[in-house]
Amino acid sequence: MTEQLAGIADEIVGKLAQAMEERSIDALLATSPENVAWTSGAAPPSQKTVRSRLAGAIVPRSGESELVAIALEGPVVRTQSRLDAVRLYEEFVEDPVLVFADSLTSRGLDDAVLGVEETHLSYADYARLAAALPHAQLVGADELFEELRMVKTPSEIEAIRDIGGAAERIAGEVCERFGAGSTEREIANFVAERYAEAGGDGLTMLVVGSGPRSAAVNAPPTGRVLERGDILRLDVIGTKGHYYSDVARTAVVGEPSAEQRRVYDLLLGVHERCLATLRPGALTSDVYAIYRAAMDEAGLPPYHFVGHGLGVTLHEGPFVNALTSIPLEEGMVLCIEPLTLLEGRFGMQIEDEVLITASGYEPFSTCGDMPVMAA
Amino acid sequence: MTEQLAGIADEIVGKLAQAMEERSIDALLATSPENVAWTSGAAPPSQKTVRSRLAGAIVPRSGESELVAIALEGPVVRTQSRLDAVRLYEEFVEDPVLVFADSLTSRGLDDAVLGVEETHLSYADYARLAAALPHAQLVGADELFEELRMVKTPSEIEAIRDIGGAAERIAGEVCERFGAGSTEREIANFVAERYAEAGGDGLTMLVVGSGPRSAAVNAPPTGRVLERGDILRLDVIGTKGHYYSDVARTAVVGEPSAEQRRVYDLLLGVHERCLATLRPGALTSDVYAIYRAAMDEAGLPPYHFVGHGLGVTLHEGPFVNALTSIPLEEGMVLCIEPLTLLEGRFGMQIEDEVLITASGYEPFSTCGDMPVMAA
Repeated sequence: MTEQLAGIADEIVGKLAQAMEERSIDALLATSPENVAWTSGAAPPSQKTVRSRLAGAIVPRSGESELVAIALEGPVVRTQSRLDAVRLYEEFVEDPVLVFADSLTSRGLDDAVLGVEETHLSYADYARLAAALPHAQLVGADELFEELRMVKTPSEIEAIRDIGGAAERIAGEVCERFGAGSTEREIANFVAERYAEAGGDGLTMLVVGSGPRSAAVNAPPTGRVLERGDILRLDVIGTKGHYYSDVARTAVVGEPSAEQRRVYDLLLGVHERCLATLRPGALTSDVYAIYRAAMDEAGLPPYHFVGHGLGVTLHEGPFVNALTSIPLEEGMVLCIEPLTLLEGRFGMQIEDEVLITASGYEPFSTCGDMPVMAA
Repeated sequence: MTEQLAGIADEIVGKLAQAMEERSIDALLATSPENVAWTSGAAPPSQKTVRSRLAGAIVPRSGESELVAIALEGPVVRTQSRLDAVRLYEEFVEDPVLVFADSLTSRGLDDAVLGVEETHLSYADYARLAAALPHAQLVGADELFEELRMVKTPSEIEAIRDIGGAAERIAGEVCERFGAGSTEREIANFVAERYAEAGGDGLTMLVVGSGPRSAAVNAPPTGRVLERGDILRLDVIGTKGHYYSDVARTAVVGEPSAEQRRVYDLLLGVHERCLATLRPGALTSDVYAIYRAAMDEAGLPPYHFVGHGLGVTLHEGPFVNALTSIPLEEGMVLCIEPLTLLEGRFGMQIEDEVLITASGYEPFSTCGDMPVMAA
């Protein structure tokens, strides 16, 4: 547990208590990997690999908070968790849902108004929880978590800035060190190594798409060898202390063609114009409209969003698309990522992370001219 | 889409139709990543990264089957899916649950007995599905999927044997090529590269734990340098065409100590005795009892299971623990993995994959004497 993460948990438990007060909720039960991590600071590694290994973060409006997790990950979660208590259950022997119910009952919360994650808790788990707490009133807390998570605390901002900056540096190093003759996989190995050196937990979804593969939305690295004239699209998506990085760069091997230059410069201009609008009160749909108009005008295929919030999940509110009109607030962290994918030819994406400040925005990473890789 | 995967899908759709007939179910809706992949052959990459990007495989008892997936992954899922039709939805614009309902309604299945995954579908999604199909009867199909998936089809067996064999070879190569002075991360990079060369989709959870780290349950690779006398525990967990490999090896750097030798040989003996009992009708709890008795007798900490089924998930039925008594059947694929973790000192694990045959078992991988790495 670093000092930084300790700070995060204290700030967040405070925000949760206030939100419960405002909504007359007595206790919250977070069960999704992202909200368990956000609430408690702990992320039992196998909750994502084995779905039945449910974890739960229980936070009453007042009183002791508790993390419930599988016993075999006790050593990890005891180190990570910032909640008051940790309770472990034995796989196969105990049902985690009944352990949640027991923990709540032992705190006198068996008749509580209990906020649960209706979009995460499975129908079967929800039914067993409701049966085990017949006097409790279960209410959806999904929006509460979503709204609270949109505005980051100071320690969260530092955590995201830290790993976002590392992602940007690593992407820059790739463009300097590799070139014609390198394989996507060599680049991926280099990124993985540097990301780990920067303290990253690991890469969640690394895009290394070269040549025509740069136009595939999700392009994991392959053995493809980079050639002169190729576009390389690199998106460094991973986490450190549960917080995501999401920085993308588009480079060219050798001199760009006139078309490549034109498309890149167009995206770069869109990127700058989108950023220039960012400030408290600006609507996300208006930011998307800038991107969309530019793509339509140039006859380039648009993507269905041009940005999103970033935190303990890769894509979270505020979403920057045509259908979502969320006024920006100070403390939000967004990715702005104009993107166009010319199928079978090349794809380009310029993605940076920014913090919304009182008067505008502060970049965590800053793109520039198209990087040229050695040919 | 390889021939192998096409074969898998045909066999599985046949099994599903028969199971629906027996249980008077009109149609199945698979929504978990594992059952979507198992049923359709397709795995939209981001369904695991972004939970709202739900996919669904719809299989009626008779009539056209359909995969529903997010539009941005259309190119991938169209190539992978073996169902009759593919329907794509636009993120933010359409609600995937309502698209499932619409697909069922358009097939005349709006008043069907519909099997759903109650342990996967969230409470909120279940509620919206039920509201959109007021005349349908939703029933849990979780056990149906679990039971059908336990006995593998011939093509599934080939798929698991293929990547399991690769995992074993790669683990063997690690023991030959690396030694004192190597870092866990160098080993991990080598495994990742070889695994990709073998056609693997990627490593889901690679354990590279050296020295005291070998005693941590989930030990991702770090920069730790291997030293003479270290134990190295390596567990090669990943997938190829959605099917898992799970082969673990324990090696020593230089000559083992007397204690290391004794514990390894004890686990190897337990491993052989467990394997010797495997045949149709043998109970999983009896297999666990062999392991448990040996650990108790030697005063070594036991793990709470000694094996599990393997397929499109890492841990599935039949579970080999004290609490589960499942008679083995021909066509089941199991991992047998005696394990002991001496906290702060070293951990050892010998894990092989086997197929239950008519008369006993057939190994997909075969451990032997403790590998000795260069010191």
